[in-house]
Amino acid sequence: MTVRRLLITSGPTREYLDPVRYFSNGSSGQMGRALATAAIDQGYEVIIVSGPVSIEYPDDATVVRVVSTQQMHDAVMNVWPECIGLIAAAAPSDFRPAQYSKSKIKKSSDSDRLSIEMVSNVDIVAEAGKRKSEGQWTIGFALETDNAIENALAKLKRKNTDFIVLNDPTAIDANESSVRIIDGDGEITDSISGSKQVIAARILALKPLEQ
Amino acid sequence: MTVRRLLITSGPTREYLDPVRYFSNGSSGQMGRALATAAIDQGYEVIIVSGPVSIEYPDDATVVRVVSTQQMHDAVMNVWPECIGLIAAAAPSDFRPAQYSKSKIKKSSDSDRLSIEMVSNVDIVAEAGKRKSEGQWTIGFALETDNAIENALAKLKRKNTDFIVLNDPTAIDANESSVRIIDGDGEITDSISGSKQVIAARILALKPLEQ
Repeated sequence: MTVRRLLITSGPTREYLDPVRYFSNGSSGQMGRALATAAIDQGYEVIIVSGPVSIEYPDDATVVRVVSTQQMHDAVMNVWPECIGLIAAAAPSDFRPAQYSKSKIKKSSDSDRLSIEMVSNVDIVAEAGKRKSEGQWTIGFALETDNAIENALAKLKRKNTDFIVLNDPTAIDANESSVRIIDGDGEITDSISGSKQVIAARILALKPLEQ
Repeated sequence: MTVRRLLITSGPTREYLDPVRYFSNGSSGQMGRALATAAIDQGYEVIIVSGPVSIEYPDDATVVRVVSTQQMHDAVMNVWPECIGLIAAAAPSDFRPAQYSKSKIKKSSDSDRLSIEMVSNVDIVAEAGKRKSEGQWTIGFALETDNAIENALAKLKRKNTDFIVLNDPTAIDANESSVRIIDGDGEITDSISGSKQVIAARILALKPLEQ
């Protein structure tokens, strides 16, 4: 029997503007941890690529720590060919400052303004979707505040995922969540409310996976 | 005997750009916690105004939770008149986005750019310094990457603090630190390397406080 190796991304990324300040979001890694725990219970070998979080991951998971979205991308691409599936629970920053200042940017007066030019980051799930081999599957997450279903469907296609888990901003850093699961045909196949443990178990039970 | 009430600010602040994304920094609240523990040991009644952190503060401290710099300012000003001293160990964001988007800002393509206009936040320590009554004292922190002493001295004057604790970016989210303490005359009175507990005890032992 071959080892089923599962890749989970988790937590936020940080995009530094200078040695002190960064862009990020409140993703806590709780969903990634719940998915890892459920996957280990099901006999998967789990690799977590995680941005900076304060939670602890299961001892049985291999954890690769990263800071920026580019680093998360590189770490994911490094192990993706050896994995059967990717569950992208992380919330990597879509944008990063176009320029990094090696010196802390000074505020010289209370009327100071600062204009920050941001550029797009690589889309990790889309890149993994492009490089899918026979039998590999990907599950993406979408967090939308407006036109949620429409945007989630667009993500599903653009990222070539098998499923999209759609949640809303109240899920961030919360113990509970409400999600809808959209399959590759764009159908909402499931609506789940409950703890992240409950949701994680349902995500891992999605069919057709590994047929 | 009157209660000596000490106000400590701790942790980062977050400045949200939309419901998901924010500006922040890696301040962990460890120095604030170490200061609170040392102050409680010395019989102070301690109020901590803290930004979002994952550490736990001493049970004997009153903790006021805030998110943004403006909220931290308001919470500090609310209790400052009743306190003997302020130790400003927090790292509140100097800037915030000029505009908040109620909808999550969409990335529509990989070539998207985003220009973010930031405006200055209120200077909490300077405001407390302006409103110092007879007998009240303030200790500020400075984190500088360039011209550290010169910048720290400018802060000391602008913020009307009794002391400035000067540290460098390696102190962020670290257990140990190296700091220099500058008194109101601009003299470096102390250089301390060690755990944040050791540094906290030395900061609380500063003279002349409460003479």
